[in-house]
Amino acid sequence: MIGVDWGTTSFRAFRVGRDGSIRDRRASPRGILAVPDGRFGDTLREEIGPWLALGEDKVLLSGMIGSRQGWKEAPYLPCPAGPADIAGALVDIGFDWAKVKLVPGLSGVDETGVAEVMRGEEAQVVGVPALLRDGGLACLPGTHSKWVRVAGGRITGFTTHMTGEMFSVLRGHTILARMMRDGPSDGAPFDAGLARSAEPGGLLHHLFGIRALTLANRLPETDAPAYLSGLLIGHEVRAALARHPGSVVQVIGAPELTALYARVITACGGYAERHDGEAAAHGLALIAGHADWG
Amino acid sequence: MIGVDWGTTSFRAFRVGRDGSIRDRRASPRGILAVPDGRFGDTLREEIGPWLALGEDKVLLSGMIGSRQGWKEAPYLPCPAGPADIAGALVDIGFDWAKVKLVPGLSGVDETGVAEVMRGEEAQVVGVPALLRDGGLACLPGTHSKWVRVAGGRITGFTTHMTGEMFSVLRGHTILARMMRDGPSDGAPFDAGLARSAEPGGLLHHLFGIRALTLANRLPETDAPAYLSGLLIGHEVRAALARHPGSVVQVIGAPELTALYARVITACGGYAERHDGEAAAHGLALIAGHADWG
Repeated sequence: MIGVDWGTTSFRAFRVGRDGSIRDRRASPRGILAVPDGRFGDTLREEIGPWLALGEDKVLLSGMIGSRQGWKEAPYLPCPAGPADIAGALVDIGFDWAKVKLVPGLSGVDETGVAEVMRGEEAQVVGVPALLRDGGLACLPGTHSKWVRVAGGRITGFTTHMTGEMFSVLRGHTILARMMRDGPSDGAPFDAGLARSAEPGGLLHHLFGIRALTLANRLPETDAPAYLSGLLIGHEVRAALARHPGSVVQVIGAPELTALYARVITACGGYAERHDGEAAAHGLALIAGHADWG
Repeated sequence: MIGVDWGTTSFRAFRVGRDGSIRDRRASPRGILAVPDGRFGDTLREEIGPWLALGEDKVLLSGMIGSRQGWKEAPYLPCPAGPADIAGALVDIGFDWAKVKLVPGLSGVDETGVAEVMRGEEAQVVGVPALLRDGGLACLPGTHSKWVRVAGGRITGFTTHMTGEMFSVLRGHTILARMMRDGPSDGAPFDAGLARSAEPGGLLHHLFGIRALTLANRLPETDAPAYLSGLLIGHEVRAALARHPGSVVQVIGAPELTALYARVITACGGYAERHDGEAAAHGLALIAGHADWG
């Protein structure tokens, strides 16, 4: 089968064998925002045409491609939902040259009962065998980080944090922007921001401290972005782990980001295991195996 | 004497009698950013000239006018500092038509020992008699809210929160901007945001909830700004009061803002007394009374 994680700004496709192994992969910047005039079919054929020529005819798409801004809207499936539930709610794309289906996003609630939605992360989460087998907590860092709860082989709920977007907007549009120049994202300044997140005073105060530290020449401008990153991720992880002390967290995403999060999770008393974005390929293959392809 | 609270974007002047009563007042948008080519002297004379003609010759300026971007830099005075200490650190403006002096800003530390600075708020704080007499906590809400600790007639330290700036940047530059239209700043949505700030999950998660609530049609776009305001002020006040449970807080500022903060302080278990911006006039007169005018 062919699995595609098709998001707002990126397109990642995998050719997966019957044994679940990834036989080939492609990545391009042709996210849904980069596809003109709704030409999703043509784009998909251009990207994976050579695999279709090899006889693959089942294509499963996850991510924002199934949103109102995408190819066709796949309504959110309510939690709890596991691979078989998701497979039963796939949405067909009427198309001639292959069987193409969309994975629905999931709707659920956070730990206080407030509504949440996700689209794309569900395929990655079910692609981590330990989560389906043992249950537990997954973290998918990014613009809008997701913390996903899994029990009994199904996703039961999740919580979103605006961490990545907050970093961008603070870096670009506040008084702190003037205090910062690009520098390494890791290292001692990251750890200093992380340590600060454990102190009292609250995030709104800790953020202003970046100005005070740079004015006092105690934080070089090129170190300030890493400090801000450690501070924000520290606040996110502390809040997310508050109800799950000592948890093992399955962190899924790009290696540079999962490395930062793993460090913070460990510092906050949890245990982290890292997975790269290929979890999506495994999850899509698993869902495809439960689906009715007609 | 004449007291002037001269900030980045506003100019407010007071003519204060020997008995401390305010005899006249002026306000204009001629903050330091609106004064071209460093013509601070001309601007001041245009604003308060009629009072000088009445025989006033002592002029005390506080706020960003004493910063590097202002008329002349008045170095920060370290805390603890009271009216007499501040009066002993005034900086003269060499000028022919009146005795003009600058109030220094204060430097201090927050409750975890991290450096902080303020410029302008010190004059307002010492203008509240209850604070000098009994000590306690002052809150000056705004772009960068200050929480100021007073003991033994002197300012001992303070803590800044980026609340107002965070509101602007979230309102203008994030995914939440699309979820909001201008509406009333107070009322039930404000209270809903305030209540949310008491729940677990952390600010970075609570902010994203605005998207979920509007998508679920549970928060009208015109109510979202008030909800965001209640959420942010709730997080600020909860963090600021954490070490001062049950405190009386002297809230100083524009009436619409002090009303919101007083409501939040009460909801968080504190007690609020409100003061308008004329505290600056009383503080400047008090400092002037301790000063050596030659």
